[in-house]
Amino acid sequence: MAHFHPSRDQLVPEVLEALLRTAAVERLETSEGVDVLVRADHDPAAGVAVVSGGGSGHEPAHAGYLGEGMLAAAVPGSLFASPPVSAVLEAIRAVTGPAGCLLVIKNYTGDRLNFGLAAERAREEGLDVRTVLIRDDVALPDIEQPRGLAGTVLVHKVAGHLAAQGGSLDDVAAAAERTGAGIRTMALALTPATLPGAERDASRGAELGLGIHNEPGARSAEVSGADDAMALVLEALDARSLADEHGGRGLVAVLNDLGGCSPQEGLVLARELLGQLGVRPLARLIGPAPLMTSLDMHGFSVTLAPATEELLAAVDAPTTAPGWAPATTPGEPRTRPAGESTAEAGDPAPTTEDGRVEQAVRSGAAALTAATEELDALDRAAGDADAGTTFAAGARAVDELIGSGELGFADPAAAVRRIARSLETAMGGSSGVLLAICSTAVARALEDGRSWPEAFQAGIAAMQHHGGAVEGDRTMLDALLPAQRALAGGGGLPEAARAAGQGAEATAALTAKAGRAAYVPEAATAGAQDAGAVAVARFLDALASALR
Amino acid sequence: MAHFHPSRDQLVPEVLEALLRTAAVERLETSEGVDVLVRADHDPAAGVAVVSGGGSGHEPAHAGYLGEGMLAAAVPGSLFASPPVSAVLEAIRAVTGPAGCLLVIKNYTGDRLNFGLAAERAREEGLDVRTVLIRDDVALPDIEQPRGLAGTVLVHKVAGHLAAQGGSLDDVAAAAERTGAGIRTMALALTPATLPGAERDASRGAELGLGIHNEPGARSAEVSGADDAMALVLEALDARSLADEHGGRGLVAVLNDLGGCSPQEGLVLARELLGQLGVRPLARLIGPAPLMTSLDMHGFSVTLAPATEELLAAVDAPTTAPGWAPATTPGEPRTRPAGESTAEAGDPAPTTEDGRVEQAVRSGAAALTAATEELDALDRAAGDADAGTTFAAGARAVDELIGSGELGFADPAAAVRRIARSLETAMGGSSGVLLAICSTAVARALEDGRSWPEAFQAGIAAMQHHGGAVEGDRTMLDALLPAQRALAGGGGLPEAARAAGQGAEATAALTAKAGRAAYVPEAATAGAQDAGAVAVARFLDALASALR
Repeated sequence: MAHFHPSRDQLVPEVLEALLRTAAVERLETSEGVDVLVRADHDPAAGVAVVSGGGSGHEPAHAGYLGEGMLAAAVPGSLFASPPVSAVLEAIRAVTGPAGCLLVIKNYTGDRLNFGLAAERAREEGLDVRTVLIRDDVALPDIEQPRGLAGTVLVHKVAGHLAAQGGSLDDVAAAAERTGAGIRTMALALTPATLPGAERDASRGAELGLGIHNEPGARSAEVSGADDAMALVLEALDARSLADEHGGRGLVAVLNDLGGCSPQEGLVLARELLGQLGVRPLARLIGPAPLMTSLDMHGFSVTLAPATEELLAAVDAPTTAPGWAPATTPGEPRTRPAGESTAEAGDPAPTTEDGRVEQAVRSGAAALTAATEELDALDRAAGDADAGTTFAAGARAVDELIGSGELGFADPAAAVRRIARSLETAMGGSSGVLLAICSTAVARALEDGRSWPEAFQAGIAAMQHHGGAVEGDRTMLDALLPAQRALAGGGGLPEAARAAGQGAEATAALTAKAGRAAYVPEAATAGAQDAGAVAVARFLDALASALR
Repeated sequence: MAHFHPSRDQLVPEVLEALLRTAAVERLETSEGVDVLVRADHDPAAGVAVVSGGGSGHEPAHAGYLGEGMLAAAVPGSLFASPPVSAVLEAIRAVTGPAGCLLVIKNYTGDRLNFGLAAERAREEGLDVRTVLIRDDVALPDIEQPRGLAGTVLVHKVAGHLAAQGGSLDDVAAAAERTGAGIRTMALALTPATLPGAERDASRGAELGLGIHNEPGARSAEVSGADDAMALVLEALDARSLADEHGGRGLVAVLNDLGGCSPQEGLVLARELLGQLGVRPLARLIGPAPLMTSLDMHGFSVTLAPATEELLAAVDAPTTAPGWAPATTPGEPRTRPAGESTAEAGDPAPTTEDGRVEQAVRSGAAALTAATEELDALDRAAGDADAGTTFAAGARAVDELIGSGELGFADPAAAVRRIARSLETAMGGSSGVLLAICSTAVARALEDGRSWPEAFQAGIAAMQHHGGAVEGDRTMLDALLPAQRALAGGGGLPEAARAAGQGAEATAALTAKAGRAAYVPEAATAGAQDAGAVAVARFLDALASALR
């Protein structure tokens, strides 16, 4: 299965059912069973009713534009086919009051005739009906009947907005005509639409100048990126001249996803549009969004319209129609200065008078450096054999800070904070971040006046909280937690180091449950101690010896 | 080119640039040049700041959720990769005031650690920071660290809404934890994502239980339609039990497009979701919409959460975040009775006393029936050789109405209206609708007290207006317009018929410009008269002879 599609016959009924179940719309119960959707809260007495429709497969057009400030009724035909006259007439009857009705018709023969006859018949019934024909396609400059494309949505918005404001039918129709006359649309697609039950037509490649019924484009297009594609479309729209011509007020642009673009592609295309045409001529941008699609056609269209006051007022007005995409006002990217750090980690931490603690930490660092190859080997079964190298890098960084007099323990909290920063940048990888998390929490606890055992406990808790591992998962915690318990129980560093060593040894019988090692088969690590746990034990052991 | 993608390195910067140019967001100017986006109008003094982020490629997550009632800052990493600690820390610093900050973190090791360390460091700077870990994936039931998926967006909404309402950090964090604990998400895709510059992995088919980083799904899936696909997802979610369990309040569902579904597919999937789970258990539906995508992955995920009061209040609240999709309240499809027709076209029109007009119209109909084969032949070059058959069908229908006494000209307007309805249904195709448009307008003009020549003119004008053709386009108009001018000039029916005949003859030298014939090469129709124009001429000629 290539798509989440039912059969071709079922597609439109299912799409309409979804809308009827989720949007504030109702279906007319007509004698002929034709499909007509109306706004649930539309009041025919309230003003001019704007009605549109046409073949389906262009969702959210047209039923998605039912709502306050847009359409009062939508007449969906079957897939890519005009709705019958009777359906259009029922729609007009259902929503038209004394103020009358405007039919917005895309310029296809079927729509023009069926909506046209429905209008004539509605007039015969005493209803005041006008029609406006949308012909925004510029792909075929010599054709006498340009197609109606995504620009239609702007006409829905202008007419719907004016109708909601209480405009007369004369006003609404005139505004729709003015808007319709000013819009130009051009499309480009990489691949055509796939009809339900059919294979995608692999003979068609990228094409410029497409309609919305999967008919071939005006010509094939050579495009190597979004930049090319947008350039072709803007050139075909004569966008530069249009921008110059309407330089004062600018343009309203619609970037329409024809149905198959990812959100990322839409944004990349928007950046091209804004970059190539410039931000200044673009008073508003609507999209990137699927507004007038052609099933899953992998392409886009750009619509440009002069940014008249009436168009700006309309596109800026809110609407309850779920298919509408709010207009944005493009601008240059804005930046703001970052905040200042209040705790400067780079401050030198003064050394203790006797330098004994500093010397002990250097011993611990030396023990880790000495164990580089042993720890790398332990890591080979579970990871990429770099545990020793990673711990040694952290050890070396701390050793160098102490050696150069930049790190001393006269202020223990400041010292541990300095170590945290150093480990974060020097070690890299998960273990560096985890030790930095631990040390940062230790430093904070010390600063808060907590004892070393309490601070150690707080550090391990932070590590567990953010790392997500528990004791027995074959991680550093299997050495850290026994050591912490020894300290908490009143033991000294030697007891803590012994407990860490025992914990590390016990990891040989454990299965990895956290970190990257969790993804390797159990047998691969069987019998070997966890490199992180061993590193913790070696460090504590050296520290304890030095401070004995 | 398969996608509108720049290079892999450029994708994220271009996506962010588009957002910065179109949304109310600003980029932090950081010393390290990391990417941090903040709400342009966020005031750190106003309350709790909600911050989220993670790898890019999930747009609109997370920068699309910047806005009032959702996020204050977003930290986008590179494609599918966690952002650095420094970026998260800068984000926290930029938006956090006295009320503190909540970090919403998707449960991936990188995010957990980098956001975790940033939180620790921010605390060190005196900022009040909490974290909540989102782990809504149910694809891998035995895993200890479930992934964070589309359910994350509900947590953004709940936390952002509560923060906007002035909630304390305790309240906001607790609500986020509660929401996070209740959500379940399951995904299914037909095809995986395509990374920029890479080919789509053709070895992967439909899969169930996907994450959002294009890793393989929990298992491959056999699906033959949207129904199957939704059934698999709902079964994996244990949706039925969940619905029963929360029967009273119901559930909130999120239907997330993973990036590659067309709008139509989204609606088809929504219908399946509502159909299979039933409308009753679903208090709200968010989507179908791309909310947490995986580039162009052609698939969807469903998230279910208990519809707590706090969740309902949050999803119903408006937000200025452009990526959010408003919640709808699913219901049964609603219908309303269609309006009554005020002009009943089926009313019998009484016959004139002498029956002369009726007889003349029957003569015209007979002439058309007699010309069936001749007109079909004329149409062969330009269309599908059915013009004669079509006109004959209309002629026969009118003839039968007169023969059965249902159509008479005692009330000419009523008679022509009756003919209009008859032609519309009996003829079909463009010519039937065009003649129905013409007759309907004629009838209305007669009703308004206009003379026959005036009414005829009004009919032709309506036909031109809706049909879009002009004289010389090789259509019925090339006979109708000369006839109309003859009548308007004071001539009788014989003059009109003669003018129509001359007009029809002249079409042999014309190129088709309207209707289907406009799409066939000029040479194909050269020398042959237009079938429609000839039909008009034949009818008028017979009518004139009968009324002479």
